[in-house]
Amino acid sequence: MGVSSVIEQNLRGALSHSRAPSGPPILADAMQYAVFPGGSRTRPRLCLAVADACGGSEDGSAIAVATSLELLHCASLVHDDLPCFDDADLRRGKPSVHAAYGESIAILVGDALIVLAFDSLVRSLEKVPEKIVPLTLVVTEAVGSPHGIIAGQAWESEPEVDLAQYHRSKTGSLFVSACAAGALAAGANPKQWREVGKKFGQAYQALDDALDVVGSVAELGKPVQQDIRNGRPNLLASTSIEAVGRSVRRHVDEALSAVPQEASTHELSKLLRKATGQFALAADGVQAA
Amino acid sequence: MGVSSVIEQNLRGALSHSRAPSGPPILADAMQYAVFPGGSRTRPRLCLAVADACGGSEDGSAIAVATSLELLHCASLVHDDLPCFDDADLRRGKPSVHAAYGESIAILVGDALIVLAFDSLVRSLEKVPEKIVPLTLVVTEAVGSPHGIIAGQAWESEPEVDLAQYHRSKTGSLFVSACAAGALAAGANPKQWREVGKKFGQAYQALDDALDVVGSVAELGKPVQQDIRNGRPNLLASTSIEAVGRSVRRHVDEALSAVPQEASTHELSKLLRKATGQFALAADGVQAA
Repeated sequence: MGVSSVIEQNLRGALSHSRAPSGPPILADAMQYAVFPGGSRTRPRLCLAVADACGGSEDGSAIAVATSLELLHCASLVHDDLPCFDDADLRRGKPSVHAAYGESIAILVGDALIVLAFDSLVRSLEKVPEKIVPLTLVVTEAVGSPHGIIAGQAWESEPEVDLAQYHRSKTGSLFVSACAAGALAAGANPKQWREVGKKFGQAYQALDDALDVVGSVAELGKPVQQDIRNGRPNLLASTSIEAVGRSVRRHVDEALSAVPQEASTHELSKLLRKATGQFALAADGVQAA
Repeated sequence: MGVSSVIEQNLRGALSHSRAPSGPPILADAMQYAVFPGGSRTRPRLCLAVADACGGSEDGSAIAVATSLELLHCASLVHDDLPCFDDADLRRGKPSVHAAYGESIAILVGDALIVLAFDSLVRSLEKVPEKIVPLTLVVTEAVGSPHGIIAGQAWESEPEVDLAQYHRSKTGSLFVSACAAGALAAGANPKQWREVGKKFGQAYQALDDALDVVGSVAELGKPVQQDIRNGRPNLLASTSIEAVGRSVRRHVDEALSAVPQEASTHELSKLLRKATGQFALAADGVQAA
């Protein structure tokens, strides 16, 4: 089975625990809607690619933690799209969860997906109890306060924002943890892999900034020009598109050079090159316009 | 150290992991504000009382899971008070989190407390790995979809509500899990204790319905008459205050009779009698008015 099918199958398996005939059906439907069909599933792919580069995890712990990270990513998208944050009515080419189901259900979907992420992680690691603590703590670090994606979103409510810390938390933390978790799942030392995740996150952030400015709704499946509309920092405000392009390529190169020598990097470099390729396409698009 | 101090100390310990000089300070402040000063801490007290009745847990697992349940309870209060749910601007005698910090921070506080609940649980159980899976699953069952408190809240968005299931999820599930978790932490069979939790939850629900009608803001530290204002079911709509009083006493008696014979019930009966006592006071109050 390909990586893509494995990820979808495990997400479906996790979601199956959130539905019962005696539970509220709209919540269960909306949770399903928030997770499927997915986006690029970049974070679980990265986690599995790192685990693979470290020799693989035969005990199912890599896919367990990859699934948990994707559920948490989906939860964060649902809450970030809410009117009091990005107020985005489109996500992955369809109405965002609050646009389709209302704000109350959207808040509860995010909450329930966070709980499900830990339910699913712990349930899947029942046979490898020694990995539960390190993998769970990598996940909570990626998501919670003070340095996870929730903290990243909270920087937007501060009168003075530490920009580097904002990006590191809001986008970088899940990439760092996806890499660290992949390494831990394969029994490898996560330290050097955190650096790979950090660089990959920086490339992704630059790409994301650029696509918000030069991308199209049809291409991205979500509103564009959101940073300007919401008064958020965007690299293109102070830098040319060419410079951002160079920055993405540099971060990707740095990510690849941070990969430990003994690790096989086949899947990983494909993933990283895809990020560079996406940006090159976007940059070509704006130059042709 | 008394039970009360142990609970507060462990909550403080958990919260300490959510703050760092490099994290967003408002989020950390608001998380603190949402947890301290606390309410009656009924759920962690119940959990500890059941563990104690089952012979106690020397390995710290009872207080670990009790702390996690209280963090999740606090998270649910923050989200339930939001404008799109109860729209309550007062909680525990002070402005609710969204009234004090705004809606964005309130949503993030709830999210971060959910994550912290699992972080704290797993971190505290590092030395007793065999208890992590059963205790985490008791917690996720109490909170998530399809039968936890989040699902309970989601019933309010359904066109047709299963009232028994609504109450069982929205209030009962945390009491059932507090009892089951206390038993599991002490190495006892949780089955019979779930029944104790269920009956205790029913008593609490009846008490809560009555206090919403006959209580005062000063007494409760939160808005009263919320059920009528929000069109929510309340026992007093169809039953007299005396009948609700009898119902609370009956549920408390049933909870006490459900306690396994071999268990010592000293702390537990004090807790249950306190619930009856609170209601008797409230009922006396309305009769005097």
